[in-house]
Amino acid sequence: MYQHFVQYYETDKMGVTHHSNYIRFMEEARLDFFKKIGFDYLDFEKMGVMSPVIGLNNIRYKRPSTVGDTIDIEVSVKAYNSIILTVHYVMKVKDTVIFEGDSDHCFLSKEGKMLPLGDKKFPELDRKLKELLNQEN
Amino acid sequence: MYQHFVQYYETDKMGVTHHSNYIRFMEEARLDFFKKIGFDYLDFEKMGVMSPVIGLNNIRYKRPSTVGDTIDIEVSVKAYNSIILTVHYVMKVKDTVIFEGDSDHCFLSKEGKMLPLGDKKFPELDRKLKELLNQEN
Amino acid sequence: MYQHFVQYYETDKMGVTHHSNYIRFMEEARLDFFKKIGFDYLDFEKMGVMSPVIGLNNIRYKRPSTVGDTIDIEVSVKAYNSIILTVHYVMKVKDTVIFEGDSDHCFLSKEGKMLPLGDKKFPELDRKLKELLNQEN
Amino acid sequence: MYQHFVQYYETDKMGVTHHSNYIRFMEEARLDFFKKIGFDYLDFEKMGVMSPVIGLNNIRYKRPSTVGDTIDIEVSVKAYNSIILTVHYVMKVKDTVIFEGDSDHCFLSKEGKMLPLGDKKFPELDRKLKELLNQEN
Repeated sequence: MYQHFVQYYETDKMGVTHHSNYIRFMEEARLDFFKKIGFDYLDFEKMGVMSPVIGLNNIRYKRPSTVGDTIDIEVSVKAYNSIILTVHYVMKVKDTVIFEGDSDHCFLSKEGKMLPLGDKKFPELDRKLKELLNQEN
Repeated sequence: MYQHFVQYYETDKMGVTHHSNYIRFMEEARLDFFKKIGFDYLDFEKMGVMSPVIGLNNIRYKRPSTVGDTIDIEVSVKAYNSIILTVHYVMKVKDTVIFEGDSDHCFLSKEGKMLPLGDKKFPELDRKLKELLNQEN
Repeated sequence: MYQHFVQYYETDKMGVTHHSNYIRFMEEARLDFFKKIGFDYLDFEKMGVMSPVIGLNNIRYKRPSTVGDTIDIEVSVKAYNSIILTVHYVMKVKDTVIFEGDSDHCFLSKEGKMLPLGDKKFPELDRKLKELLNQEN
Repeated sequence: MYQHFVQYYETDKMGVTHHSNYIRFMEEARLDFFKKIGFDYLDFEKMGVMSPVIGLNNIRYKRPSTVGDTIDIEVSVKAYNSIILTVHYVMKVKDTVIFEGDSDHCFLSKEGKMLPLGDKKFPELDRKLKELLNQEN
């Protein structure tokens, strides 16, 4: 599980974490998740593979958070077909769910061409993501 | 129509506008939209009404943008039932759609209680939002 | 003169523009300034020249600003010796100075080597910056 | 010592941490520093005391950092006279200094009036800051 400590500069004049920052916390937690399953995104980038966010869905702001709060972030693989990956996030403060949502990703070469992971490029990551998908379901 | 001029500090190491910033551009464009239809959100806040983002849906990153680009943002009312408002956004750079998405909002009193707009509180805004909804559909 | 329209997401829980954002407004205004004197920073980058911020000095937060405020930003050349450029900023809301400060810049090649502008590389920019420096003093 | 883990969204198209973010890291480290010496800034705010940044000086960007880097931040009291506090920051990545700088702060009541800490309001914080100042010098 990943933890984000909410900062003063992440609040807005309502006194709570600005809603755009949760999209950033998703990124933080996702990169940490990839690292923990053995795939450092920064190494991927060096090899010329990018995995941009192509969509966000089912984003639910359930409770506010603010500076001083520790957000626990659980990341899981919601869908994966070797081309599109959907990552699911649940964020909690002291066991209360404050945020849920999904991000969609594809895999691109430096030149911007779609890279089906199952093909030949990254068989290990492909296998790992399928394994995680099955564990969830 | 609202325009956002992409700034250097809004780019990331991929060389493009970081995806979290589009959620901010949505907010910019939404406040401008409310102002143009005669309802200054900042005045609402002073009167003790808040309209937080409670959800994001159908967010699609279609093309990247970068510093120097002018993003044209069209805002419309997608759904409204006096309690929940769904705002739709289409962002274009030089007539090419680069982003689409929806945000869901409710209306809250300072104490965090739901304010059904149709009720008594803001009959004019309620009427205006219904009118805009009908125009769209 | 450059104008920045303060956004909701630029405020913090004190209800005012977060102080870090003024450093971003300096960048916005500086790139605009360079463009207006005929040197588009983005073109420079394409030619392999970067001009990073190497220092900030005399930053004074005199009055707060908040969402809805228009900040007028005046940019001038405070010092320049073909190697180091110091840019000065005065920010006002409705004629009241709210912020002042300086940023120091050098000029670097893609490989990170210092580029003395006077040398050979960009004689026109060198001449222009000296001219602006003299106008100020 | 405080640690900041540089995030992807903190980089810009030069591939490095955007310079404005270091001002945010200063805030993170400062609040952590205050907490460690027994004064939680958020508690102060609840008691109606604010300590805004009124100036930044001697900010030096010495080396870039990027996503994946851990920044070690040392915070110390550089000057203090019961009215103005100057905090000094040294940031390192793997023992190399990448950033140095100072921030100036005053203490304000909710109504925006200057609060000399030595006076009567917060004698313990006043004593602690003087003690830390002497340790440094």
